Amino acid sequence: MVAHKIAVIAGDGIGKEVVPEGIRVLEAAGRRFGIELSFDEKDWGCERLAAKGRMLPEDGLETIAGHDAIFLGAVGWPSVPDHVSLWGLLIPIRRRFDQYVNLRPVRLFEGVPCPLAGRKPGDIDFWIVRENCEGEYSEIGGRLYAGTEQEMVTQESVFTRFGVDRVLRYAFELAASRDAKHLTSATKSNGIIHTMPFWDERVKAMAERYPGVKIDQYHIDILTAHFVRFPDRFDVVVGSNLFGDILSDLGPAVTGTIGIAPSANLNPEGTHPSMFEPVHGSAPDIAGQGIANPIGQIWSGAMMLDHLGHKEAAAAIVGAIERVLASGRSLTRDMGGSASTVELGKAIESEL
Amino acid sequence: MVAHKIAVIAGDGIGKEVVPEGIRVLEAAGRRFGIELSFDEKDWGCERLAAKGRMLPEDGLETIAGHDAIFLGAVGWPSVPDHVSLWGLLIPIRRRFDQYVNLRPVRLFEGVPCPLAGRKPGDIDFWIVRENCEGEYSEIGGRLYAGTEQEMVTQESVFTRFGVDRVLRYAFELAASRDAKHLTSATKSNGIIHTMPFWDERVKAMAERYPGVKIDQYHIDILTAHFVRFPDRFDVVVGSNLFGDILSDLGPAVTGTIGIAPSANLNPEGTHPSMFEPVHGSAPDIAGQGIANPIGQIWSGAMMLDHLGHKEAAAAIVGAIERVLASGRSLTRDMGGSASTVELGKAIESEL
Ligand SMILES: CC(C)[C@H](C(=O)O)[C@@H](O)C(=O)O
Ligand SMILES: CC(C)[C@H](C(=O)O)[C@@H](O)C(=O)O
Repeated sequence: MVAHKIAVIAGDGIGKEVVPEGIRVLEAAGRRFGIELSFDEKDWGCERLAAKGRMLPEDGLETIAGHDAIFLGAVGWPSVPDHVSLWGLLIPIRRRFDQYVNLRPVRLFEGVPCPLAGRKPGDIDFWIVRENCEGEYSEIGGRLYAGTEQEMVTQESVFTRFGVDRVLRYAFELAASRDAKHLTSATKSNGIIHTMPFWDERVKAMAERYPGVKIDQYHIDILTAHFVRFPDRFDVVVGSNLFGDILSDLGPAVTGTIGIAPSANLNPEGTHPSMFEPVHGSAPDIAGQGIANPIGQIWSGAMMLDHLGHKEAAAAIVGAIERVLASGRSLTRDMGGSASTVELGKAIESEL
Repeated sequence: MVAHKIAVIAGDGIGKEVVPEGIRVLEAAGRRFGIELSFDEKDWGCERLAAKGRMLPEDGLETIAGHDAIFLGAVGWPSVPDHVSLWGLLIPIRRRFDQYVNLRPVRLFEGVPCPLAGRKPGDIDFWIVRENCEGEYSEIGGRLYAGTEQEMVTQESVFTRFGVDRVLRYAFELAASRDAKHLTSATKSNGIIHTMPFWDERVKAMAERYPGVKIDQYHIDILTAHFVRFPDRFDVVVGSNLFGDILSDLGPAVTGTIGIAPSANLNPEGTHPSMFEPVHGSAPDIAGQGIANPIGQIWSGAMMLDHLGHKEAAAAIVGAIERVLASGRSLTRDMGGSASTVELGKAIESEL
């Protein structure tokens, strides 16, 4: 048996508290299912930036380029502007390793209070597929007449056929593999006139190759409204970098799971390592207190095992999370309990 | 008494059905409060495009440039690509008349079912101030290598100090005039690295002039989540053209009022006419059946009277809407009733 080599970047704030719980559960799953994992821990993040002037060593990404996956906690700290820390670590990883799919589940669990009226577990269960390498997130743009009344800034959104088609292909394949075979595309072709009509064209072109998949498309404004009004109607939702970002916070919010949502930054071909991280951030307000909810990290670990081919182990972790949530015991403060990060991690470990 | 001259553009689809109800209620308010209104009806829209090749005459906008306000129904029809119809009529009006503020209320009414659990009328009552002339909505950009594998499109977002400061000033003034004096700014300065950090800088600079206003700022992804989880915490929310667009559909969705939400496209200085239109679109699926909900249009009429200086009349219309909603009678199908567009319009008229 060959060990999977995992780069571990706990990062900042509560990242350092939840990552050990993620590893705890991964190791338990490894023991139970005979999966060998080796963890290569990196001290990259804002503290390193303060101490050494860079979020990570100059050749940092190359040192993990041959690893099987990256397990990341959270990046960002109040002393560093967000665009500096994120564009210094998180976004370069997504780009260098061509993790062009950001995959995030939206699911309503028993035991998790849902802000919507009249919804029950099972009603809401879908995936968001977000383009993760181009689009609205770009380094192209800048500032003119800085500091004067004429000051202005620009930012270029760039969509390529290459970049759009590959994420659409992933989304169509995912939809085709599911029972409902229903894909919803987020657009804004009525307001954003150059890029979004192009996005729609590529959806239409790709749809011809997947005649079994039913397609819907909504402008992002009304789509956010539908997430609140009809969250039971979605199966797979695909969106650009920015729209996918928005929808993948909103989706977990309507299911009450913003604190526990995981994400996978995938390089589907496996040419480069993929990265797994919770949707939440470094949460400076509660960092250091040992009360952060580790489920987003643990669930991200399950997605990692799934990606590495261990479907059964991945499902077992998600099952353990589900049962612990439903039991109402060992929950952290954000879910109305009083358990610590470590207690909840251990509860999931022993449930497994 | 001088009559206010109102350009009326019913536009497409249900626009043609709800605008007459808007006018019915405006005329009733005019009779009651002694306001004289003269309506100048224009046939602009997709039908005109089909018949005459343009959404409006070449000098169309100039013919209404001296009017006191514009009362618009809805623009768009399935036979015309949305970006053609909207950039052919709606967006040019906003720009030509420098309607740089798009103002939209979010309010929970008695009698309107709310998709959130445990919220009651009075809990949710805030304003969204959207930048309406620049930002992500731009004609700058285009396509390269069309039709080939190398195809790509770009779109430039442009934010100027001039454009950002003037909408922020409006938002700060509005917040300063309210009890809570609380302004929330939508940003995405962690992902959109050129324009959004600039937006944040301008918020900070403007905040110095309004020491009495409490400021919050959230990234748009988590802000959409907060709209669902804590909609009672907002007072005035300000965002860019795109972010404001998204938030002003999501806000009405969480209060169940997407079908009845109004909007004002304001040129606050009054140099040019402002435009008043419901948030909803032309709704081709129900157009022609006489069942559309006219409240968004009627409420937009109230915002128009308010803008023209008739605060009391405006409040009376909103009061009449509130009472009809609370009564549960004369509601249209989208609100669980069976009344027609005209019946609901008349009910509000007689309540007034
Ligand atoms: C129709 C569309 C172009 C428009 C916009 O995005 O501005 C609409 O959604 C709105 O909010 O008024
Ligand atoms: C931190 C930020 C740059 C990031 C993003 O917008 O991609 C985050 O919100 C996410 O969704 O992973």
